Amino acid sequence: MESGAAEPTVSAVEVESAVNVGGNSSIIHGWFSELSPMWPGEAHSLKVEKILFQGKSKYQNLMVFESSTYGKVLVLDGVIQLTERDECAYQEMITHLPLCSISNPKKVLVIGGGDGGVLREIARYSSIEQIDICEIDEMVVDISKKFFPKISVGFEDPRVNLHIGDGVAFLKAVPIGTYDAVIVDSSDPIGPAQELFEKPFFESVAKALRPGGVVCTQAESIWLHMHIIEDIVTICRQIFKGSVNYAWTTVPTYPSGIIGFMLCSTEGPVVDFKQPVGFINESTSNSDRPLKFYNKEIHQASFCLPTFARRVIDRA
Amino acid sequence: MESGAAEPTVSAVEVESAVNVGGNSSIIHGWFSELSPMWPGEAHSLKVEKILFQGKSKYQNLMVFESSTYGKVLVLDGVIQLTERDECAYQEMITHLPLCSISNPKKVLVIGGGDGGVLREIARYSSIEQIDICEIDEMVVDISKKFFPKISVGFEDPRVNLHIGDGVAFLKAVPIGTYDAVIVDSSDPIGPAQELFEKPFFESVAKALRPGGVVCTQAESIWLHMHIIEDIVTICRQIFKGSVNYAWTTVPTYPSGIIGFMLCSTEGPVVDFKQPVGFINESTSNSDRPLKFYNKEIHQASFCLPTFARRVIDRA
Repeated sequence: MESGAAEPTVSAVEVESAVNVGGNSSIIHGWFSELSPMWPGEAHSLKVEKILFQGKSKYQNLMVFESSTYGKVLVLDGVIQLTERDECAYQEMITHLPLCSISNPKKVLVIGGGDGGVLREIARYSSIEQIDICEIDEMVVDISKKFFPKISVGFEDPRVNLHIGDGVAFLKAVPIGTYDAVIVDSSDPIGPAQELFEKPFFESVAKALRPGGVVCTQAESIWLHMHIIEDIVTICRQIFKGSVNYAWTTVPTYPSGIIGFMLCSTEGPVVDFKQPVGFINESTSNSDRPLKFYNKEIHQASFCLPTFARRVIDRA
Repeated sequence: MESGAAEPTVSAVEVESAVNVGGNSSIIHGWFSELSPMWPGEAHSLKVEKILFQGKSKYQNLMVFESSTYGKVLVLDGVIQLTERDECAYQEMITHLPLCSISNPKKVLVIGGGDGGVLREIARYSSIEQIDICEIDEMVVDISKKFFPKISVGFEDPRVNLHIGDGVAFLKAVPIGTYDAVIVDSSDPIGPAQELFEKPFFESVAKALRPGGVVCTQAESIWLHMHIIEDIVTICRQIFKGSVNYAWTTVPTYPSGIIGFMLCSTEGPVVDFKQPVGFINESTSNSDRPLKFYNKEIHQASFCLPTFARRVIDRA
């Protein structure tokens, strides 16, 4: 039954050119392939219609391309940050999971998030008075404004104050108890975002939050990075004396097809992340952009973990 | 800021050989890439350590390879059917979603599922007396027994009766009201499984079920195949006069990283799929293989849909 060794056949695919895009990723014969030591042995590839931008900032390689079936794509150091087709899942979940877990948030800080998508989502809350954002790489903001107007629209809200700089340093200068919520929209812990996964950073976040304030950080994939998640959970249990929970959602263009979020609250009024209390006012500035992904049921469901992940997170 | 056209650089990757593996997929320079008109413009790739089997049955191309990071992989017509690393999610969910939704199932039919993984999961129920399986392609069964012993172990249960043949024809010959549950573990609706997504098939399933019996079918991805799902939901609402629900779960090596399930019940005792009533006895034959993925909370969560999918499914 076995046919033995595979016979080489003529391939329809030929190498036309190879474009390094940072990390180990490259564009070969019209396909972008996302390779990283963070997910060895696998790659997700998107067909490229046109490269719209390639550049290098002080911090990282940046690329924007028009894909065949996922709209425009933003790539940092060879890793897909967002595509127009599925960005709704990530932006809505990382924003509304924390903000719908508290009543009437007024002051919110975003660390990272230079594309503006999280700002767009925060702007849906009429209770919010002040939205600070600290993005380390100004080129990300510029690129987003140029190529992703439906995402960078978040910067247009008059409540937004953009700070270009290091999020770690920014947080240290924040007066104690300033924010109702902090959202950490970071890239992976290899590269400029590394410190955002370490204990001193979480300690600064906790200080910047009011009692019963909440933080939501991008927290990788239970299929790929259980060891990173276990470490983050352990750190957060030490620092945050309110609630500490892990949630996840589907994002097709992220490795393994999912992304997780660490949700914590400081000591003070009790926050039950699994029972949203907040209210998104869709009749404010975003009335022409209804929610595509988030709803109360998916909020609650996102905290339900497969058994293999629950075992690790519960014991962390 | 823009660097203009991308400059070709020397690639570390060279085409050593190209191996056609059916569909549009191929192995090039040691990577298997899964291409299909079912998900144009994207591909998931796995690094290949060794091709263990390549062959062609009466129905399809079959391949087994050892991957670098996902264990052994089964590929039919160029599409990944399972990997040792993430098969637990699919097999456990497609089995326990229907079987935990009813009390004390006794007779179960599997259509497809020739790898044996669903049988392995069904065998956890001590109430079950008879497990019939109808797989069209005997080579799938043989290949699974040879290369995937932890999956094909399902065939060893003495309650299992294996029928090699067409599932559509098999169902037509089943006496009315025979089964408590039917599980349709099929490949995509291009190829030998096409009929399993059509109305006459669902009508046969409904006849084969007892009143208040349940069916669970593989039902594609809400990110990629909303039009197929909409059609299936419409058909199922016409045929199944009990409950009709859609659920989904994460499977990293399936396109878009998720897979859905259509769950329906026939007229009779009411089935509320969202409130599991069943009981998996882990102390029976599978005591050495605890559940890796499924639990009651993930069962309930799997029915919560993103807003964009809920809108379509609710109106179907």
